[in-house]
Amino acid sequence: MANIQKVTSFIKENRGEYIELLQKMVRQPSKAGDESGIQDIMEKRLREKGFEVDRWELDYEALSNDKYFCASRSDFHGSENVVGVLKGAGGGRSLILNGHVDVVPEGERDQWTDDPFSGEIHGSHLYGRGSTDMKGGNLSALLAVEAIQAVGITLKGDIIFQSVVEEESGGSGTLAAIDRGYTADAALIPEPTNMRIFPKQQGSMWFKVHIYGKSAHGGTRYEGVSAIEKVQPVLHAILELEKERNEPLQSPLYEGNPIPVPINVGKIEGGTWPSSVPDQVTLEGRMGVIPGEDLNEAKKQIEKRLAILADENAWFAESPVKVEWFGARWLPGEIAEDHPFLQALVEAYQSNKREEPVQKASPWGTDGGLLTEVGGVPSVVFGPGETSVAHYPNEYINMDYVFETAEIIAQAIMDWCGVDE
Amino acid sequence: MANIQKVTSFIKENRGEYIELLQKMVRQPSKAGDESGIQDIMEKRLREKGFEVDRWELDYEALSNDKYFCASRSDFHGSENVVGVLKGAGGGRSLILNGHVDVVPEGERDQWTDDPFSGEIHGSHLYGRGSTDMKGGNLSALLAVEAIQAVGITLKGDIIFQSVVEEESGGSGTLAAIDRGYTADAALIPEPTNMRIFPKQQGSMWFKVHIYGKSAHGGTRYEGVSAIEKVQPVLHAILELEKERNEPLQSPLYEGNPIPVPINVGKIEGGTWPSSVPDQVTLEGRMGVIPGEDLNEAKKQIEKRLAILADENAWFAESPVKVEWFGARWLPGEIAEDHPFLQALVEAYQSNKREEPVQKASPWGTDGGLLTEVGGVPSVVFGPGETSVAHYPNEYINMDYVFETAEIIAQAIMDWCGVDE
Repeated sequence: MANIQKVTSFIKENRGEYIELLQKMVRQPSKAGDESGIQDIMEKRLREKGFEVDRWELDYEALSNDKYFCASRSDFHGSENVVGVLKGAGGGRSLILNGHVDVVPEGERDQWTDDPFSGEIHGSHLYGRGSTDMKGGNLSALLAVEAIQAVGITLKGDIIFQSVVEEESGGSGTLAAIDRGYTADAALIPEPTNMRIFPKQQGSMWFKVHIYGKSAHGGTRYEGVSAIEKVQPVLHAILELEKERNEPLQSPLYEGNPIPVPINVGKIEGGTWPSSVPDQVTLEGRMGVIPGEDLNEAKKQIEKRLAILADENAWFAESPVKVEWFGARWLPGEIAEDHPFLQALVEAYQSNKREEPVQKASPWGTDGGLLTEVGGVPSVVFGPGETSVAHYPNEYINMDYVFETAEIIAQAIMDWCGVDE
Repeated sequence: MANIQKVTSFIKENRGEYIELLQKMVRQPSKAGDESGIQDIMEKRLREKGFEVDRWELDYEALSNDKYFCASRSDFHGSENVVGVLKGAGGGRSLILNGHVDVVPEGERDQWTDDPFSGEIHGSHLYGRGSTDMKGGNLSALLAVEAIQAVGITLKGDIIFQSVVEEESGGSGTLAAIDRGYTADAALIPEPTNMRIFPKQQGSMWFKVHIYGKSAHGGTRYEGVSAIEKVQPVLHAILELEKERNEPLQSPLYEGNPIPVPINVGKIEGGTWPSSVPDQVTLEGRMGVIPGEDLNEAKKQIEKRLAILADENAWFAESPVKVEWFGARWLPGEIAEDHPFLQALVEAYQSNKREEPVQKASPWGTDGGLLTEVGGVPSVVFGPGETSVAHYPNEYINMDYVFETAEIIAQAIMDWCGVDE
């Protein structure tokens, strides 16, 4: 029997065990700062399977001095990474399998049908916060390696399985793993791509734009200047810049995408009283960062475009808008279109699914940005699950796709790392 | 010596006592629900001066059934009106002197130089929340009557001195006084007009406009519809309506006023996350109501104008904006331009100041709206103090103007009510 047939047979025969494992993983409500339970499971599992396991709490002091550091927390107490290394026989290429275990909050409990961390199965769906984003993908990657082991195949290259924290808040977990020296010849991140392959990942940065007016009583509003009326030229400038940035983007990965790298204004707040002229409005938004683009260059573009408002509009000359960068930030990531690991993954997909994979530039950032930009590890994102259910109530994952993904990843691993005959 | 000379001499000679009285009044932090202390002072004073005093707690049940009721509270425990009636000798016209004792909250303590309720004197300024809005004016009116009494003059008509609560939140205090049967041939409200005479008072109503979009991830923002981008057509429609409503307004009282009765959008809030497409935005605003205009007609105008958006814009046809009326509301008020009480006040001003008074339509509502519309009492607003310091930190009143105003009001009272020789 060919290696891949042995592996897929193992996966088919052991579905029950791995569904139970994913249930256990999802039942850990591993929100930021509360990842010990899930990491206990991951550590135990990796040790049982013969990985060399490294578990450590993130060092806030050390990380916060890193220029790529971005977090909403001021300490990382209780947040530990687990990295398991499965040494290969030698002579093969190494691969990082990187997945985060932190999940976003469950939101309003009463919007969930079951408990948000139930792990309940309905048909082929497994429900719970984190099932899609991204414990389901983590299980695919783990199962891929375990299946290879289980059927007696030895890889030539090393597998570095990274079970990281803090992806949802800026990537400190992966940054810590890079700083600790973990590296490889390529990386795969099984984030929910709905089994499409994302060789490029859009980065993003959050910004605020502060717009000013002049206060007055609403009954004499002509004595003031409404900051709300000044929002329109700011929005217009942002839309213009978005257009300028997107027009030159040429890649088959952007095909059919009307705005490959958008700038989104997501929040607005201004004024304090219905009968006062509002003297300030704040916009909050997300600027997409083009794969390969320097973050600071991108920042300068929006700052410059909004500074030009002062030339176009006397009010903005007097009261310039201010741009502030805050909150989360994801570096863009990518892998060369002809990179052999990407080719291995595409071929594994073709051979398993008997069709071409969809390849796209991702509309959001992952820890692949840090792996690419900081770690120097070419990264590709491919996993089960759809982002349309991530971060929402009744998040679920279709187990069929978890197992299909595991088969494809196993095939790609064997091709890339090489099999010791 | 002429009566007015006796009165002005009394006022000049007794400044010290009345400054102390105003200090006592300002030192009562009479925010909504906490007016007992100031009403104790008012009740005691009126009794001492021979007024028939009526003090009662507002009856929420009874008031809330009144169609003109508008309040942010759900009970009036601890909020009492004090009304003092000084019966005239007979044969004269009666006058309501109406002033509110409730004050708006002091806001951030550290923005005040002194304690917000200090009553401190610096030069001719007396400082504290409520000094301008409107305890200083109340003192002017009280002093006017007390000076007339003190120099031995008997009025023919009755004086109804109303020390009311709840003006800042919709006028339930004055409404309660009307419901209790208090009426007169005219009313004066010494709100801070900076000694200008306001024969017309703009009313106002608060509204919300709910604007809808369609949510999506910011990285694929083209899959959503930004409610923030839909604000502009709504603002435009509101500005158009404001123009339509103001163009026909013809009165010398509106002269030089670019927008006599504005519609102000004072607050905006929408979206929840920088990297999500915002699916809702709420505007909060204040619609000025023209003196003589029906509130419901005014409401319909804005509702109709925003409904037309659906004809102009496909998105609004699918997701119409919603208009909601909420919070505070002030009825417009007025007195006929040739009303003899207005004439008496104008002449008193001319004779005291040796110049013409400035007459304007007020840019804001007062309890004069209720007195006019519900009580049927023609009302004029005239008092010391500037609204530019009301509701702000370091509110103060210039005592010189408090005493000048008292002199002018005393003269107007004697002319209007008649003096029993």
